[in-house]
Amino acid sequence: MAADTAFPTDHLAPADVLTGAEPLEPVAPVRTRSAAEEARTLVAQGRVAALSTLSEDGAPWGSLVVYASLADGTPVLCLSTLAEHGRNVVRDPRASLMIGQADVARDVLDSGRVTLAGRVVEPSGERLEQAREAYRAASPASGLYGGFGDFTYYLLELERVRWVGGYGRMDSTTPAAYGAAEPDPVAAGAAYAVKHLNEDHADALLAMARALAGHPDASDASCVRADRYGLDLKLRTPRGVATARVGFAEPAAAPGDLRAATVELARRARATR
Amino acid sequence: MAADTAFPTDHLAPADVLTGAEPLEPVAPVRTRSAAEEARTLVAQGRVAALSTLSEDGAPWGSLVVYASLADGTPVLCLSTLAEHGRNVVRDPRASLMIGQADVARDVLDSGRVTLAGRVVEPSGERLEQAREAYRAASPASGLYGGFGDFTYYLLELERVRWVGGYGRMDSTTPAAYGAAEPDPVAAGAAYAVKHLNEDHADALLAMARALAGHPDASDASCVRADRYGLDLKLRTPRGVATARVGFAEPAAAPGDLRAATVELARRARATR
Repeated sequence: MAADTAFPTDHLAPADVLTGAEPLEPVAPVRTRSAAEEARTLVAQGRVAALSTLSEDGAPWGSLVVYASLADGTPVLCLSTLAEHGRNVVRDPRASLMIGQADVARDVLDSGRVTLAGRVVEPSGERLEQAREAYRAASPASGLYGGFGDFTYYLLELERVRWVGGYGRMDSTTPAAYGAAEPDPVAAGAAYAVKHLNEDHADALLAMARALAGHPDASDASCVRADRYGLDLKLRTPRGVATARVGFAEPAAAPGDLRAATVELARRARATR
Repeated sequence: MAADTAFPTDHLAPADVLTGAEPLEPVAPVRTRSAAEEARTLVAQGRVAALSTLSEDGAPWGSLVVYASLADGTPVLCLSTLAEHGRNVVRDPRASLMIGQADVARDVLDSGRVTLAGRVVEPSGERLEQAREAYRAASPASGLYGGFGDFTYYLLELERVRWVGGYGRMDSTTPAAYGAAEPDPVAAGAAYAVKHLNEDHADALLAMARALAGHPDASDASCVRADRYGLDLKLRTPRGVATARVGFAEPAAAPGDLRAATVELARRARATR
């Protein structure tokens, strides 16, 4: 992105507000997903996106698309020239794809989304076969309509990747970092894990907040997010509300690993207290 | 939209495919929602949209927004210059808003969405008050952040309205028709009505298909959509699958009216058979 010196470059205020009360004890740093990992995870979890293209007069045009992605995260589209977006990319290949988190719990502005911007290109040879195959998994009917004369398979070659995770959680990354990153392998099980922890293991979350997150005076804690590296907590203290992060001993490699990883965290918290 | 003579103007093939078997008996025409009513309904039901704006180099940029709308359906946005979309519209006010149906059952490509394209303008005076009030209902926290110096309320003044209802159901309409149309007042209850009809009243749907939709040989029928004017059915006949529409005696004026309207339809179907 070209520097735009007329404006500051990021939302900082909400992050400051939401960090809340500072820990009372030193806390070991906990690994978080990189912006590239966040972006790859959203792309891997989703199937529907908003495509932005340029109309004949250069105005932006939004439309709904089903997308797939190649193994390196490159988005695959299948567009018809009978639809405006298909005609738009024939005239000007510049496009962006906005993909939102599927399982938005409450406040959609505090949910994840990613914008992938670049140019669509028509793949050929092996890349075309990969694109077709990936797209068929996302939209089985494409086995039929993808062969119609008005449909073309495209890859979106990325130039910019912008991730927003919610209030105060956002960053840009490079197409190279995006391509090299791995989607979080536990993402499919994260929403269930969060729900289960909050419903049945509030005591364990409180122990983690007190012993591992530097808030020994926390009075209650809930889990906001779970990922392969750890848990994001929201907790209450006499000094105000705080957010905190606690890390797994080892990154989880599959949704089924979340259980053992959180049990280990709870055990460690109770042993530390 | 400027005519684009290089391409046909609409997807016709899928509609032809899906209409299926023709009715065997003459069927009275049934009112359907206009494209303007469809668009107003989607806008009234939604709260989250994809905003397309133009980046500094003129490339399209998609982002997630919460929107509200004024009484005439004009979309209201509240954008920060700390976010790219907010900086984009300061440079170039052209924007489009894509809003998808909230309750997508199965195939998202067969679901409703609308693209509203135009230019954002800063309202003042009474319009600004209306915009603020409408936006606060959509995003209560805007009472706080909407007052920050980096946020601006915008109205999207429409130039083009494009509705897609699913395979073979799509049309453009004018901003004037959009502004004059009414959102479907039963929309909030439609998904429940469809589910209830399919689960508990398959016999009534079959009677409608046979007696009112011109398919006396139908062997089963399900409801695909319900709106203030009637029901869309999908039915099976020895001649193939067919879609059909049956109309209420009077347009329904509230979600609670759908029950009486469908009971009347079922009674009429049974009396006719």
